[in-house]
Amino acid sequence: MVVAIVGTGLIGGSMALTLKEKGFAERVIGVDSSLVHLQKARELGIIDEGASLEAGVDAAKLIILAIPVDAGAGLLPQVLTRLKPDQVVMDVGSTKEGIIAAARKLPNRARFVATHPMWGTEFSGPQAAEHHAFAGRAAVICDREDSAPDALALVEQVYDNLEMRKVYMDAASHDMHAAYVSHISHITSFALANTVLEKEKEEDAIFTLASGGFESTVRLAKSNPSMWVPIFRENRENVLDVLNEHITQLRKFKSCLEKENYTYLKELIEQAGEIRRVLNK
Amino acid sequence: MVVAIVGTGLIGGSMALTLKEKGFAERVIGVDSSLVHLQKARELGIIDEGASLEAGVDAAKLIILAIPVDAGAGLLPQVLTRLKPDQVVMDVGSTKEGIIAAARKLPNRARFVATHPMWGTEFSGPQAAEHHAFAGRAAVICDREDSAPDALALVEQVYDNLEMRKVYMDAASHDMHAAYVSHISHITSFALANTVLEKEKEEDAIFTLASGGFESTVRLAKSNPSMWVPIFRENRENVLDVLNEHITQLRKFKSCLEKENYTYLKELIEQAGEIRRVLNK
Repeated sequence: MVVAIVGTGLIGGSMALTLKEKGFAERVIGVDSSLVHLQKARELGIIDEGASLEAGVDAAKLIILAIPVDAGAGLLPQVLTRLKPDQVVMDVGSTKEGIIAAARKLPNRARFVATHPMWGTEFSGPQAAEHHAFAGRAAVICDREDSAPDALALVEQVYDNLEMRKVYMDAASHDMHAAYVSHISHITSFALANTVLEKEKEEDAIFTLASGGFESTVRLAKSNPSMWVPIFRENRENVLDVLNEHITQLRKFKSCLEKENYTYLKELIEQAGEIRRVLNK
Repeated sequence: MVVAIVGTGLIGGSMALTLKEKGFAERVIGVDSSLVHLQKARELGIIDEGASLEAGVDAAKLIILAIPVDAGAGLLPQVLTRLKPDQVVMDVGSTKEGIIAAARKLPNRARFVATHPMWGTEFSGPQAAEHHAFAGRAAVICDREDSAPDALALVEQVYDNLEMRKVYMDAASHDMHAAYVSHISHITSFALANTVLEKEKEEDAIFTLASGGFESTVRLAKSNPSMWVPIFRENRENVLDVLNEHITQLRKFKSCLEKENYTYLKELIEQAGEIRRVLNK
């Protein structure tokens, strides 16, 4: 099958690598606004050739939109309008309500499947693409009843090839849960990086002393702003809701320290340890 | 050389494993208030035998205090008072001002070396001990001028055996820097876990969807309260200072979202990316 990857970065590139290895994609056409990325993706064997959006869409059975969420919602009408009856479009963006709203009134809505594979790293671009990414993680498929059965089945095959667990939910639930299990972690990391950069004037000390714990909480701060600003914008209300709660929780720690209430501080830490139950079950 | 490890958990246990492997410790005596830990440490080959504090101190050339910071400061007078002239005591706690203050007026102060190896995981107890831990990380040695040259030299040998980079600073500087590069990360993680546990009522969703990003920012939330409450208590002022800044930084993200100021939001995220410069140089 010919697959067009629109956006040859971390996610699109990693998908292409596995879909080619598994033989699911016989030919991968790359579409990217950056010619440098396109060239790099070809060098790395992620794509077989580069093409314009129009040529890529026309040649492919499956078109995967793997670009920032605002760009995905923006391109979708153009892609869907151009589609022949047996073609399928899927997106892999981190928010789902916006793109589904953009698709709603289009005549080819049923050829579109809205998804979110829950995998990523803090790196971006084709050079960040990884072999064997995604395996074991959840792939969320949203509002499946609005997609044609054959389109849905093809996208399910994609995620089977990536060895992901398929999870079905409506777009609103997805965006709410994503705010908790992904988006807030990024805000926390960005803010933590800014805290340390703002207050710790001796950068050599950070470099010299930084331990694994610091690196793991702050690594997401390296994530690409062009990807994350649109996510926060699209998921603004859910993210604000979780962020408010997060500030409230941090204030509890602050209050314990200010009042030297170490009994309650211990309770807060013990409560936090309950996350074990959820992560390891 | 005979080494007594007071506290046979994650840090003490991991040190014992490497010091034995390197031949630096010919015999390791374990001292622990938990007989279950002592038994486990023996089973795992971390220690050769268990003993009371008194018997352990009397038999060892080097005594390593690897217990929560308040317990370490509490035991130190008792240990130093008992010491023969050629013996050395070191601690490995995450705060240094408290234990150094506790040591200051004791006659054997010069036999004590205050240190902090910057390595750890979110796990605890002897079963959490790791082979080849510590390597490549910083080992901070504080106020070295207050330790006898031979005591300092012995402790430097310990860290050379662990393949750590030795870093020297005064206790006050250590505690300030540790608040930035370690302690605040833990508070962030605890608060993030509590945020998600408080607000995300569908625990199955967390379990199903949690991605690597979430796990890496929240993993420190599994850390042991008995270790961390004393650290936050001892380093209260520095931690409060950094925590206030962190809340201020999070409020900036909140304000951007509330006012839909995506230009400034992007700037904040770009600023955060500067952490790369400090972590990777």
